[in-house]
Amino acid sequence: MHKKLFIPGPVDVKEDVLQKMATAMIGHRTKDASKLQRDISEKMMKLFYTENQVLLSTSSGSGLMEAAVRSCTNKRAAVFAVGAFGKRWYDMAIANNVPADLFEVEWGTPTLPEQVEEVLKTGKYDVVTVTHNETSTGIMNPVGEIGEVVKKYPEVIFCVDTVSSAAGAKIEVDKWGIDVCITSTQKALALPPGLAICTISQKAYEAAKKVENRGYYLDLVKLYDYIQKKDHQYPSTPSLSHMFALDYQLDKILAEGLDNRFKRHEEMANYVREWANKHFEVLPEEKYASNTLTNIKNTKDISVKELNERLAMRGYTISNGYGKLKDKTFRIAHMGETTLPEIKELLSNIEDILGL
Amino acid sequence: MHKKLFIPGPVDVKEDVLQKMATAMIGHRTKDASKLQRDISEKMMKLFYTENQVLLSTSSGSGLMEAAVRSCTNKRAAVFAVGAFGKRWYDMAIANNVPADLFEVEWGTPTLPEQVEEVLKTGKYDVVTVTHNETSTGIMNPVGEIGEVVKKYPEVIFCVDTVSSAAGAKIEVDKWGIDVCITSTQKALALPPGLAICTISQKAYEAAKKVENRGYYLDLVKLYDYIQKKDHQYPSTPSLSHMFALDYQLDKILAEGLDNRFKRHEEMANYVREWANKHFEVLPEEKYASNTLTNIKNTKDISVKELNERLAMRGYTISNGYGKLKDKTFRIAHMGETTLPEIKELLSNIEDILGL
Repeated sequence: MHKKLFIPGPVDVKEDVLQKMATAMIGHRTKDASKLQRDISEKMMKLFYTENQVLLSTSSGSGLMEAAVRSCTNKRAAVFAVGAFGKRWYDMAIANNVPADLFEVEWGTPTLPEQVEEVLKTGKYDVVTVTHNETSTGIMNPVGEIGEVVKKYPEVIFCVDTVSSAAGAKIEVDKWGIDVCITSTQKALALPPGLAICTISQKAYEAAKKVENRGYYLDLVKLYDYIQKKDHQYPSTPSLSHMFALDYQLDKILAEGLDNRFKRHEEMANYVREWANKHFEVLPEEKYASNTLTNIKNTKDISVKELNERLAMRGYTISNGYGKLKDKTFRIAHMGETTLPEIKELLSNIEDILGL
Repeated sequence: MHKKLFIPGPVDVKEDVLQKMATAMIGHRTKDASKLQRDISEKMMKLFYTENQVLLSTSSGSGLMEAAVRSCTNKRAAVFAVGAFGKRWYDMAIANNVPADLFEVEWGTPTLPEQVEEVLKTGKYDVVTVTHNETSTGIMNPVGEIGEVVKKYPEVIFCVDTVSSAAGAKIEVDKWGIDVCITSTQKALALPPGLAICTISQKAYEAAKKVENRGYYLDLVKLYDYIQKKDHQYPSTPSLSHMFALDYQLDKILAEGLDNRFKRHEEMANYVREWANKHFEVLPEEKYASNTLTNIKNTKDISVKELNERLAMRGYTISNGYGKLKDKTFRIAHMGETTLPEIKELLSNIEDILGL
């Protein structure tokens, strides 16, 4: 039995979109392949409200996160973390000998503009990395406000992880001043995992060109140059299957309407949070709670494992808390093509199982 | 109209295999995901005649080539190149500040064991990289014989690019002493591009653990450790679609029988070479000519572009020469699920177009 996925990725993919993954192969050095990349770029630019170049990487989101911090840091990176995936960016910098400092907050609290200002005014940093939506804690950081701070430091490259929020929440790349905005396919874009996407500003590209030792496969300059010089093609063979599906799914997303799509996510999030606060307690404070995933404190000391096993028998899956929050919280994702009626169905099953 | 692909990847994928790319999503931290990885490993071990660990990377083959040279080189890498993809391995080393020397031969000639011996006896190197099958020149190097030389140097890690030969020619990883054997899905494995695969020996793993600055996403140690400790799962979300399709296609490959499959490739190669030598001339000498791709000297000074345009109208695609061989050679791939009757059909269309 297929279990409906209410986990923070991979998410369920609609049958017609899955079918695009089964498209017959074409050469990756053909005009058709160039057109596919160009079409995807134009649609991603709409989704991200940007004029910046769009790059695809056949990798998970982690691939492009590493690419960003390694390719763009000439001086030192300030990594702001509100959970496991924020911290991963620091691990990536260290694993590449990229000078970096980690600025963590207590899990369940956000990165605030004041904190970023405090750090940037030391003048030590030329890269800032921020997680827009942290799935380990359920935080959605105020990236627009943080962007206002970063803009005061013209040499700083602003990198944002929107892996679990892009296509589920409004992200205004140009207005917010994001230089490298990274996402991947298996979250609110509602596609299978296997392709990462980023936008890159001219400023980030120029900074990256000065960085030595950027590597090869995850070098943003190499990807950017290829797109520019080789009619929208890639240095190595990309995942054409994902590109076919992404191109198709972006049409569907734009047909739904971006505002409608973000509103649908907001409505699901509001409903889950209200439910969670009635029976348990939402981990982050309301203002910073994610619209694609709710992290719920296990105030009733239920066995999350047992709940999930019983949900599985009914055809649903949710997530346990992540890392140090395992069993202390549980997580319900509400992103991608999930609808409010499906969320209600899930929650009423949870109520039934737990006798709430 | 779909054009039959006689290019060295992506190759045509059978409809039932493509359908596996459209499999519904599962969580990547589930028992089902672990089983999928274990099943793939067992089948890949048969394909490569090895007891070594199998690792998957959501990337192109280039991703794992970079991973190998960066992760395994403590001292200095000796990169042997017989064409563009061999040289790429050197570019990757340099892009990562990995000490390396490039040993190139004239395009169309092989890397010979004597050349490797000459280089290794200097004692300067702890990594050797060799291309098994070079698609830019149509060379298939004598990797088994080279392996006999490398075995004399117990500290040397032997890395082989089998991207365009695995599943199209017999590659005996353990017998040949290959420490890291790399391939990807879109060539003789006859799957869509987007997933790379390697085998890694205990010796390579131990050497890699001593290397600093291995990066994150393409760190072989991290992949290896995750597989060992986390029940065959990956640090970041892998391309499950490719894994479903690979698992299924490996069953089909093993059902065909490895020897039958290699023989089918050999028969196609013999036929194409005989045809090529009748009308043109095969670039490499017979002994080192590839069994998955034939590189043909354009001795009649035909317009390869025009030939391909006219083939396209009939539903076929072949490849021009690569890089500096553009227009000087043209290439016909005969790998994956392609059959001898299809090859005959293609060649008779070429004869018809060129009036041979």
